[in-house]
Amino acid sequence: MINIAIFGFGTVGSGVADVISNNQAEIRKTLGDNVHVKYILDIREDIPGVVHDINTIVNDPDIKIVCETMGGKEPAYTYTHLALERGISVCTSNKELVDAHGVELSAIAREHNCSYLFEASVGGGIPLLRTIREAFGHEKVSRIAGILNGTCNYILTNMKAGKDFDSALKEAQANGFAERNPAADVEGHDTARKIAILASLVSGKKFSYEQVSCEGITGVTQQDIADAEAQGMAIKLLGVYEAEGPSVVVAPYLVPKSSPLYAVNDVFNGVMVTGNMVDNVMFYGRGAGKLPTASAVVSDVIECAKNQGHNIHTGFADIQPVGNVSAPSKPEGQKFRVL
Amino acid sequence: MINIAIFGFGTVGSGVADVISNNQAEIRKTLGDNVHVKYILDIREDIPGVVHDINTIVNDPDIKIVCETMGGKEPAYTYTHLALERGISVCTSNKELVDAHGVELSAIAREHNCSYLFEASVGGGIPLLRTIREAFGHEKVSRIAGILNGTCNYILTNMKAGKDFDSALKEAQANGFAERNPAADVEGHDTARKIAILASLVSGKKFSYEQVSCEGITGVTQQDIADAEAQGMAIKLLGVYEAEGPSVVVAPYLVPKSSPLYAVNDVFNGVMVTGNMVDNVMFYGRGAGKLPTASAVVSDVIECAKNQGHNIHTGFADIQPVGNVSAPSKPEGQKFRVL
Repeated sequence: MINIAIFGFGTVGSGVADVISNNQAEIRKTLGDNVHVKYILDIREDIPGVVHDINTIVNDPDIKIVCETMGGKEPAYTYTHLALERGISVCTSNKELVDAHGVELSAIAREHNCSYLFEASVGGGIPLLRTIREAFGHEKVSRIAGILNGTCNYILTNMKAGKDFDSALKEAQANGFAERNPAADVEGHDTARKIAILASLVSGKKFSYEQVSCEGITGVTQQDIADAEAQGMAIKLLGVYEAEGPSVVVAPYLVPKSSPLYAVNDVFNGVMVTGNMVDNVMFYGRGAGKLPTASAVVSDVIECAKNQGHNIHTGFADIQPVGNVSAPSKPEGQKFRVL
Repeated sequence: MINIAIFGFGTVGSGVADVISNNQAEIRKTLGDNVHVKYILDIREDIPGVVHDINTIVNDPDIKIVCETMGGKEPAYTYTHLALERGISVCTSNKELVDAHGVELSAIAREHNCSYLFEASVGGGIPLLRTIREAFGHEKVSRIAGILNGTCNYILTNMKAGKDFDSALKEAQANGFAERNPAADVEGHDTARKIAILASLVSGKKFSYEQVSCEGITGVTQQDIADAEAQGMAIKLLGVYEAEGPSVVVAPYLVPKSSPLYAVNDVFNGVMVTGNMVDNVMFYGRGAGKLPTASAVVSDVIECAKNQGHNIHTGFADIQPVGNVSAPSKPEGQKFRVL
């Protein structure tokens, strides 16, 4: 029996409990053992079995893995730190924390023979980080271009179908895809965090969110979308890493019909990775949502369970800051960049 | 230094040598060691450093990994057997051999603490088998639907653009995508082998090529494609595994525009995996071609090099034959199945 704890019982955290409970038979088959949620840490009182004291969890020698699904920097950072220092692996969906402190936390994990994994922080349920790490370690990756924010993609897809920005945003909020304060989504900050993590992973240099040249979708009009369509293009909010430069840009791009990213619609995400040998490979799936994101967290739990007592090398523990990042300008006189 | 041998110096085998030579720096960074091609086994004389005697290779204690890129059952089966029995891991692109003898060869690998990996046998450069194995081990996979043959997809894409079947096939042959004898491609047998491997991987039961209900694309007309387009559909040759039944079908399907498989064109492959938690995830990329396929072989070489002296568990070593497979019939009075 593998005993785990969940830090933060919101959408993703409760999803982790659901995935484990629904798919216990599959987990047992894969792992040769059951996974049991022994503790849930949350500030709320009305959750069965909830605890409020982090020490109850990190001092329990039964606990070898925790899922950090709190989001935000604090107390997630302090709690993650405490767990890793005791040799407890942490699997997180918290892109903000990975961007800000992922390098330090990965180094602590390595020092204590445990792991800090963050598959769910980028691309929701899409198996992306582990795949890039393991399948493309021998590739020269020249570019990653991704639709990484489901809310923006939903809004742009609906604007193409005739809605204006405000109604499309309201619909996304009504459907639970967009936050009440949608700034992090529509201004591109969420995409910027994700492409910074991807750029760091493939380049072996740490890119931070602040180094991303970032423009959101609030300036995109229905007319822009109609004009793009007339040219056989779609407007998509992309995060684009280029090894040459290097540069990391988040902006609305014109995406030609010939690119498979053109057909990534609604809340789906799509990430295109270009390697010098494998050429273009795209990964598509649900970039957010309770169960898909929780599924990615659980895939990390399983990897940690298979590697107890060992550090899983993600490359984050010893990467150095990238230094100068260039900010390529838009083509002269044009509103949008072209993929 | 990791010394390897390449069995068969055709398109994929020579591609393996190219990937290793072009990307030695990346391989070294990932592995902390260089990979060196010590032997090439081929019947031809005019390859620098070629050897003709399998015993030279399998009796050399330097050799820990070989790439089997010969294709076909013999002598690939005998040579693979010989290598694995000496604890030499084998990485293959040979789907015919994996389908016919993959279970036996995987068991031999396990017995001798080495590995039999076959990432390149399905989906060319797309990281598919390892990803499904590692990221979806905790999912109930209900369906896999894949465009798995680049030649057929190229022909169907070109027929949509106005060419008839024969000209599209001739063009594919002129461009080197299709074999001079295209039967294995256009009659669906190549797709059948690949979907049988995928079905085996996710179900934990061995499906064989002979159990696939198989129809190719030779009966698809330009009129069919135009009719499909008028309904907002494309005709694609799919391999479809359904857990319910179970069933494995290869046939031309009507694929609606809302599916990301609709937009997978030309020689590209796309594989959609449906899990009960993660929902639909699609993997897209070059399903064939020298360097992409070789890149997948090299990703297996790296995994074997990281796991020397250990068997990498693919699930194939101990799977049992699936037993009865159902053959769902087409909808009454219709020429095509609908995805």
